[in-house]
Amino acid sequence: MVTIITMEKLTLVKIGGDILDDESKLDTFLSLFQQLPDKKILVHGGGKIATELSKKIGLDPEMVKGRRVTDAEMLKVVTMVYAGLTNKTVIAKLQGLQVNALGLTGADGNIIVAEKRPVGDVDFGFVGDISEKNVNVEFLKTLLSDNITPVFSAITHDGQGQLFNTNADTIASSIAIALSSFYKVNLVFCFEKKGVLKDVTDENSVIPTINEANFNSFVEQNIIADGMIPKITNALQAINKGIAQVIIKNAKDLLDDEAGTIVTK
Amino acid sequence: MVTIITMEKLTLVKIGGDILDDESKLDTFLSLFQQLPDKKILVHGGGKIATELSKKIGLDPEMVKGRRVTDAEMLKVVTMVYAGLTNKTVIAKLQGLQVNALGLTGADGNIIVAEKRPVGDVDFGFVGDISEKNVNVEFLKTLLSDNITPVFSAITHDGQGQLFNTNADTIASSIAIALSSFYKVNLVFCFEKKGVLKDVTDENSVIPTINEANFNSFVEQNIIADGMIPKITNALQAINKGIAQVIIKNAKDLLDDEAGTIVTK
Repeated sequence: MVTIITMEKLTLVKIGGDILDDESKLDTFLSLFQQLPDKKILVHGGGKIATELSKKIGLDPEMVKGRRVTDAEMLKVVTMVYAGLTNKTVIAKLQGLQVNALGLTGADGNIIVAEKRPVGDVDFGFVGDISEKNVNVEFLKTLLSDNITPVFSAITHDGQGQLFNTNADTIASSIAIALSSFYKVNLVFCFEKKGVLKDVTDENSVIPTINEANFNSFVEQNIIADGMIPKITNALQAINKGIAQVIIKNAKDLLDDEAGTIVTK
Repeated sequence: MVTIITMEKLTLVKIGGDILDDESKLDTFLSLFQQLPDKKILVHGGGKIATELSKKIGLDPEMVKGRRVTDAEMLKVVTMVYAGLTNKTVIAKLQGLQVNALGLTGADGNIIVAEKRPVGDVDFGFVGDISEKNVNVEFLKTLLSDNITPVFSAITHDGQGQLFNTNADTIASSIAIALSSFYKVNLVFCFEKKGVLKDVTDENSVIPTINEANFNSFVEQNIIADGMIPKITNALQAINKGIAQVIIKNAKDLLDDEAGTIVTK
């Protein structure tokens, strides 16, 4: 006799600055997110507000290789904006849509304990790196079973009192992988385009499916290039670690199962 | 036969700007808070940071009758500072002390739903008023039974998407009263003095006990005056609604059961 255990579905959605910086886009996204039928988790990145605030108070945001250097003052700004203003704005809006959302950083409930990024050629400052091993799955499962929708900002801690700025994509994939032993997890990265495009000038040239077999040939043909290579590489790694699907799509298409690029085995 | 049900103890501590604005005072306080043997909840107010930040970004904080007027821009500032920087700094420090703390606004888990203060002589803006009836006790009990220490910032919401600035003393007493049917609640207000003083110039003139019987005579003799009158009136009301004790003391004396002023029946 074969016993088939059907795991409950969980959708983890990551949104970034393009949605957070535009209130009407955010409202549209949240009303779609509210309609997702499964258990769900939201992870949000930053956006322009942190950069604007840091300039207003006289800081000079330093970027190295496209990543923000987080000194002590910048850590205060991102903690204020990501964990405070952005997170609580999203939580209040979701509550208004009858979604019982709970805002979290990695420090809350000790849910993600990160390690300070080692100083190499660049000192990124108070930046924490994580993997799926750093996620406190038990507490997350308790919240989900209480029908609470966790909403993460991209702030973690070291368990010793220090907060860290942490990459929101990595938080999303680490949580998704950590929960994949308990739920059938779909990980959705929302971004400006309709999906991964064959031709960046043509919004309708979405590649419907990427897997290990066709990924290399897309890279060889220079169809997938630049910043999209590490994104897809990470997505394929997440698939290998147990996530059912990684979907890269426009936020407007959140409820359309046919939309976007699906990264799969 | 008489059945005696012993309720578990819970200590709810409220701290204000005098502690939050001084990192060494905050660290000292948190190490004492960590040693409290009972279930516990922390409520924190604001402090200077919100006022300083608002000035830096060009806002002009308006105070009416000692209370901040919270317009849309000031609401953003207090949400950033109270729910973001201050709350997460405290959470990370408590985690470093092995206290499994979880930061909350009233919006998180829909835990406190407030009503916008009606516009009278003064329009206080986005200020929410609450009472014990507005506290979602079930979720709080779940967290406490999971050995989580809730840490509240003084931000609530209306359940329709709007955040509010809310008085931290009121949040503390509302939560304490709401939980008093389930726990033996001690409500501790930490402030700069050693307690309520008979003579404001003499730190050692602490009134050890205030109750309804002696309160009126203290007021008549002008020993208790000004801002202390509503504080004690609120404390006596809280006692009448089921809180075991309200204690007004210096944060340094948190673990000293003999210290401060005890407001009781």
